[in-house]
Amino acid sequence: MPVVLAANIDNGGILLSLFLILASAKILAELFERLKQPAVVGEILAGVLIGPSVLGWVEPSKLIEVLAEIGVIFLLFNVGLETKPQSILKVGRKAIMVGVLGIILPFVAGYWISVLWFGSTVEALFIGAALVATSVGITARVLGSLGLLDSEAARIILGAAVIDDILGLLILSVVSGVSKGELNYLALAGTTSSAVIFTAGVAVLGAVLITRLAPRIRSLHISNPFFNFGLLLCLGLSVAAMYMQVAAIIGAFLAGMALSEATEGNVKMRKLTSGVTEFLVPFFLVNIGMQLNLQIFADSSVVGFAVLITLVAIVTKLVGCGIGAYGSGWRFSAQVGIGMVPRGEVGIVVAQIGLSLAAISDKVFGSVLFMAIATTLIAPPFIKMLFTRTDVDEDIHLSDIVSRIG
Amino acid sequence: MPVVLAANIDNGGILLSLFLILASAKILAELFERLKQPAVVGEILAGVLIGPSVLGWVEPSKLIEVLAEIGVIFLLFNVGLETKPQSILKVGRKAIMVGVLGIILPFVAGYWISVLWFGSTVEALFIGAALVATSVGITARVLGSLGLLDSEAARIILGAAVIDDILGLLILSVVSGVSKGELNYLALAGTTSSAVIFTAGVAVLGAVLITRLAPRIRSLHISNPFFNFGLLLCLGLSVAAMYMQVAAIIGAFLAGMALSEATEGNVKMRKLTSGVTEFLVPFFLVNIGMQLNLQIFADSSVVGFAVLITLVAIVTKLVGCGIGAYGSGWRFSAQVGIGMVPRGEVGIVVAQIGLSLAAISDKVFGSVLFMAIATTLIAPPFIKMLFTRTDVDEDIHLSDIVSRIG
Repeated sequence: MPVVLAANIDNGGILLSLFLILASAKILAELFERLKQPAVVGEILAGVLIGPSVLGWVEPSKLIEVLAEIGVIFLLFNVGLETKPQSILKVGRKAIMVGVLGIILPFVAGYWISVLWFGSTVEALFIGAALVATSVGITARVLGSLGLLDSEAARIILGAAVIDDILGLLILSVVSGVSKGELNYLALAGTTSSAVIFTAGVAVLGAVLITRLAPRIRSLHISNPFFNFGLLLCLGLSVAAMYMQVAAIIGAFLAGMALSEATEGNVKMRKLTSGVTEFLVPFFLVNIGMQLNLQIFADSSVVGFAVLITLVAIVTKLVGCGIGAYGSGWRFSAQVGIGMVPRGEVGIVVAQIGLSLAAISDKVFGSVLFMAIATTLIAPPFIKMLFTRTDVDEDIHLSDIVSRIG
Repeated sequence: MPVVLAANIDNGGILLSLFLILASAKILAELFERLKQPAVVGEILAGVLIGPSVLGWVEPSKLIEVLAEIGVIFLLFNVGLETKPQSILKVGRKAIMVGVLGIILPFVAGYWISVLWFGSTVEALFIGAALVATSVGITARVLGSLGLLDSEAARIILGAAVIDDILGLLILSVVSGVSKGELNYLALAGTTSSAVIFTAGVAVLGAVLITRLAPRIRSLHISNPFFNFGLLLCLGLSVAAMYMQVAAIIGAFLAGMALSEATEGNVKMRKLTSGVTEFLVPFFLVNIGMQLNLQIFADSSVVGFAVLITLVAIVTKLVGCGIGAYGSGWRFSAQVGIGMVPRGEVGIVVAQIGLSLAAISDKVFGSVLFMAIATTLIAPPFIKMLFTRTDVDEDIHLSDIVSRIG
């Protein structure tokens, strides 16, 4: 009996942690929905709760990390399916402005504040790079659940996130090079241009090619041909993106966008795809929460710095991106700005690279982790508020006041 | 640059293997569909092709094993959703007959042939136990794709598979105990009865409880409440089953069955669930194929034994289960018998336990692996043939001949 038991418990333990992740995420999502707060916040807090910081029921692992990665890949693939290439190209100029200004301000501010606080230039460079990160998955998730992915502000955020990703990786490469005392400008130019060519090429040509291929896909003999083709395109372009020095989620987003027209109205394909997404996204969100290390609060100097860079992270993105989106009213600027605030998994990865290069200390790592997760928790309620308090509501509110005065 | 590249390639390599698994599975599934052969065979052969035996593109790993396990769990959950508890209970007596006879014949024949071939009793016991295994997932997949899961033969196969699983684990426990020279009858009786109570209890009470809970599930605030509840019930009962000494897939099947009535007509829930299944099942099938070790063919004595036990495995299940299903015509008996032939992942696990206990040699391990995979590849075309060549076709065929003679 013990052998069978042992063989069972081995995988049983893994299955148990997957169950705990999913169950805690759904229970806290339900709670937050009842409180009229975004479900994502509940799901990230579920990770904090069951992770090493509080209950310690589930340890972060490679398996959970991979499930989380596939989760955010499918999340962006789904967002891509809702996004027509033209709708992004139309807001292209504004997206570039938002992306670029949303990088310069956080980087410069993050760098100088760190220099003033620590004096170490390399550490300050990494903190600046971490403040540049944008976790578009979180914003996309909130807007998707509100059915607002096709709003102009949402499209600008998506476009700016793509630009941020490429520029962010460029900055990270430079910072990594500086920290190791080696910087190859030729290699840098090479990878940057291949990243740009890949992204622009797939964005422009992808949909055209897929539309031409559609009749062939439709006539495949396997069941659910578009869904299966979509799975392969999503994973295939995610892998290709990684090898082209772009984040996997950008590849997945481009794959979705390429399929958006050909699969419009294909309810079955969309439902099958969102089944995969709904199953995997909780692993992405819980995994972010599990990274939080509350032990940093034992050291008051760390807490001070963590709170300071969190505030800087929020203000600089809000202002930088807000200015980039300038021209359509303050509400519009605020929508775009707040949508770019979450640093999520991207900020965590930058911090991890800094730690692995011994360029940042454990304490700074803890602070950056705190900043990445705090911005990710703080933004969603404001995203929801700014996107859903419509002008109609304001009119009612105003007329209400007017009638009271009258 | 190399740092970012390295950080990317790490997960990039994992994503690449997932992409290769999915792509090879879908390409060979398409090929087999065009040849009018079951897609599952193509997907298992995709594993043989990309695995260590042939191209060596993807190595079996813990991650792939876990994805495969979740894949077969969702496969059985989906089958459960299509199965009402009453429909299984109605064929209960016949399912017990099929299950029991389909265990005795393979075990006794496998044991004695091995004793005659090797002379080793412990090794022979393990070979017998491996021949007992039933991989119901394969048959369910073939019948599901043909839309024949609600046929009487399919329901008998499902019921018999549940019984086989419990008795099979009991045999495996005894065999493991004997091989280690320790056998605790009391513990054996305890776990067996808890397994039976768990399975019967969930089968009988599950649907009743869920139907009572349905209004509460419906009024949850999270999106897709039934889908999310289903995910949790599926994983939760899979884990519970493992701790109760029943296979995870039995728990998943019971979870699906418990939900089958409450979610009947809930197209959205069913589509979301089958999205998860369709994404994950290729990992299950490819992982079976990847286990095949073609190097055993270098030793002619191993080949002889591998082929012999494969033939014994096929004939004994076919005859044993066929006799169990006796009374509704030879075709019906053949349908049930062939549906029980695949040993798949269950046979592989038994072989792995035998190897880990040093109870079987590497050569016997290779032979049992071959038997498990060969039975899994051979059965599906016959399942398809026996279940789809309907009596109507035969009538046409007969009348055709008659008219020709006339």
